[in-house]
Order: sequence, then C-alpha cells, then structure tokens
Amino acid sequence: MPSFVVNVMLKPEIHDPQGDAIASACHRLGFPQVASVRQGKRFVIEVSEPASEQRIAELAAELLANPVIEEFSVHPA
Amino acid sequence: MPSFVVNVMLKPEIHDPQGDAIASACHRLGFPQVASVRQGKRFVIEVSEPASEQRIAELAAELLANPVIEEFSVHPA
Repeated sequence: MPSFVVNVMLKPEIHDPQGDAIASACHRLGFPQVASVRQGKRFVIEVSEPASEQRIAELAAELLANPVIEEFSVHPA
Repeated sequence: MPSFVVNVMLKPEIHDPQGDAIASACHRLGFPQVASVRQGKRFVIEVSEPASEQRIAELAAELLANPVIEEFSVHPA
C-alpha cells in the first residue's frame, strides 16, 4: 500500500523545553558535543487508494499539526 | 552547525493505539482512504563539533529510544 510520512516540528521561533531537557541529559550522559535538540512527531500514513501529497497535507494541517505553533512536511515513504 | 535527524518508531509488531485513534479520526473527518497511521518521534540534533552517525546512534539507543519496543534510524539533516 502507498504510504506517506508527515513530519511535525515546532516552529523555529517556538521554545522547546522538552528538547532542552534532552540536550541537558545528553551532556550529563557523555555526549557534550550536542548543541541543541528539537523534538517533534513523525507519522507514517498508509492509504488504501492513491492519494496526492496535497490531500495528505490537508489531513496533516487539520489533524496532525497545530498550525499556530507547528510546521509540517509531507513526503512519500 | 552539522545536524542529524533521529526517527524513532514503535517496532512493527507493537500495537499502536495512538495511531489507531488518529486513523479513526481521519475516517470520521473525511479522509476514508487512510488505511493505517503509526505515530513516532522525530529528533533534530545539532552538534557543535563533527560527530559520526555511529556516535549519534549510540546516543539514540541510550537516550531517545526504548529498544525493547522501538526502533530508530539516524541520518544527516
């Protein structure tokens, strides 16, 4: 079945405390070269019939991302 | 600064109720062609000095993924 990947990340201007906490943990646990971490979501969507990236982007904008604070990208898996 | 992407997904044999809930919502909201959804995490890691993918994979295995139920991939951003 065809599938798509939707990546959802906080907009660059939005502070990401979760990512900051992970970066701190990296430093404590022996990975001092980590400068920053941003955490987002990744969705793998299987479709039962051919669908356009445009249609999947509509779905992402409506259901998977919060356009106020997040941005997303869609690509075939 | 160089950066890497780490994608973390549940192993295929692990049931994903969160993904199932999203798939149901897609059907209700006018996207009947969605057959399945799997939800995972995406991390963007900036490093202050060159690091190997191998080293980032060690970090991912230790800090970002639960190897019992999750699998991950690392690639340059």
